[in-house]
Amino acid sequence: MIDAKEYLKKMSAELDGPIKSYIGNEEPPNLMDASKQYPYAGGKRMRPAMAVACCGAVGGDRSKAVPLAVAIEYIHNFTLIHDDLMDGDEKRRGMDTIHVNYGMPTAVLAGDALFAKAFQIICDLDIPAEKMREVLRYVSQSVWDLARGQQMDVNNEGQIVTEDVYIETIKLKTSVLFAAAAAGGAIIGDADDATVKAINEYALETGLGFQMYDDYLGVAGDSSKTGKSVGNDIRKGKCTCMITHAIRSIKDPAVLEEFKSILGNMDATDEQCARAKQILEEAGSIDYALNLAKEKVENAIAKISGLPEGEDKEFMIALARYAIDRDV
Amino acid sequence: MIDAKEYLKKMSAELDGPIKSYIGNEEPPNLMDASKQYPYAGGKRMRPAMAVACCGAVGGDRSKAVPLAVAIEYIHNFTLIHDDLMDGDEKRRGMDTIHVNYGMPTAVLAGDALFAKAFQIICDLDIPAEKMREVLRYVSQSVWDLARGQQMDVNNEGQIVTEDVYIETIKLKTSVLFAAAAAGGAIIGDADDATVKAINEYALETGLGFQMYDDYLGVAGDSSKTGKSVGNDIRKGKCTCMITHAIRSIKDPAVLEEFKSILGNMDATDEQCARAKQILEEAGSIDYALNLAKEKVENAIAKISGLPEGEDKEFMIALARYAIDRDV
Repeated sequence: MIDAKEYLKKMSAELDGPIKSYIGNEEPPNLMDASKQYPYAGGKRMRPAMAVACCGAVGGDRSKAVPLAVAIEYIHNFTLIHDDLMDGDEKRRGMDTIHVNYGMPTAVLAGDALFAKAFQIICDLDIPAEKMREVLRYVSQSVWDLARGQQMDVNNEGQIVTEDVYIETIKLKTSVLFAAAAAGGAIIGDADDATVKAINEYALETGLGFQMYDDYLGVAGDSSKTGKSVGNDIRKGKCTCMITHAIRSIKDPAVLEEFKSILGNMDATDEQCARAKQILEEAGSIDYALNLAKEKVENAIAKISGLPEGEDKEFMIALARYAIDRDV
Repeated sequence: MIDAKEYLKKMSAELDGPIKSYIGNEEPPNLMDASKQYPYAGGKRMRPAMAVACCGAVGGDRSKAVPLAVAIEYIHNFTLIHDDLMDGDEKRRGMDTIHVNYGMPTAVLAGDALFAKAFQIICDLDIPAEKMREVLRYVSQSVWDLARGQQMDVNNEGQIVTEDVYIETIKLKTSVLFAAAAAGGAIIGDADDATVKAINEYALETGLGFQMYDDYLGVAGDSSKTGKSVGNDIRKGKCTCMITHAIRSIKDPAVLEEFKSILGNMDATDEQCARAKQILEEAGSIDYALNLAKEKVENAIAKISGLPEGEDKEFMIALARYAIDRDV
């Protein structure tokens, strides 16, 4: 049985060199430094690992998927730079965010630069042009969707949306990039269309589970590990499936009123946030979210049942389970 | 003899439909509206016209270059949205800019979305995958360079740089996208490598002339037509080849001192800005810049002397001349 966390560490070590090899010493240095900061600083590397594993799982040459893995990681980091700017977040991975370090204009441009570099890398994939075109189609669609999902997330803030809208939002802002990484890896591995589709769906479901669990950690996680204040998402009024469940499940109007008065209140005290969490627990909303995340992951694993057994498939399964079984 | 301005109007009318056809009514509406605002509002459409003309000039089917023309226009508008945000500009084409209309997060995302859409369009070009890959190589390189050029422009502000640095900056922030449009059009038209290279160089030189003339208009243009305050570039300390020429040419230390005291002084009065312009005139710097722009355009035209005669080539020549012969 593969330990996804350990395996990810091993793969990160393999991917770190390539990730650090595509941005050279061009002019101007401040843009190069700003573009490098996040991808060079590490992270879980789940998306690039998925690209490589999906290539291997269909019998492909894993090394040919490494540039795609780098491109996907650059796209992920481009969105982090822009998201941090939009959210006004000042810290990531223990360091000042790009707009804090370099100012707003450079944060905008460093994101744009990583985005462009990702497409340069995809253009140069060592596969036939027809295959490259298929990869490009998944990746360019995913970035279009990412922007839509992020905008929906911005729009949803402080709003109570339906569970369907929540799921559509996290699909676009999180799952589609996982799915492009996975489908792209499978295409590079020369998988047939049905297999590419199955792997794409595996990653979409995994991404949904991952984001649901992320939102779960935001409320129920150990803040000393996640580094996120437990009340943060509640004060922001972030609408997750815990919230949508609570809103439709709380029977006592007084409790519902109390809950709504805390949600989205930037001045809510720690005690009020703890009370909101207690209300979520009593309504069964936290368990509900966790179960929904588990269901997505089991769906994901079922999608790839047809893949031949092997280490890459084992890792794909372990990675899907890890998406909803981590401290941070 | 083709009138470039009239011909551009005719081509704009043909391109407007396609430019308005690639962004549908997807969710969320505010992102769609923000993404559409600039490309739908018009503009000179020089870059898309160049893509189409270069395809025709090499004997290609012009209609096959129309999607590339749209993609290039989207990329141009993506950079305008992000530039306006970075520069804090509040008006463009008579309308509020995107960050003013929709807020900073949506301005960031609308730029990102147009960028992604451009690559989706290129992916779907109706040409063989090998050719699409060549187009993609030019375009993705150009966006990487655009970010570098824009960052250099930000870095140069208030600095006195050399003419070489100025030219490298405008090449990256302006010429490379013209060049990608032109080379891409030629590739779609199935031109041989030498012709693609010649057309690429034609557009690089045209772009240099265009930006030099833009900088010239910023100081010497009719502000009632350009819509730009004449003192704007001087107060910002924008380093152009007029400035670099003046700095190295002014012999009287007192005049040089006076000039430097006005340049980059955000509190400079209109009288002081007029005095700075007078100093530039007396030093021959305005004529120098204009002559340099003319030289670039003549270089551009020389590059395409080998193309067969015809309306598209005529327009390419007229367009290069128009780059340095316009009010706005």
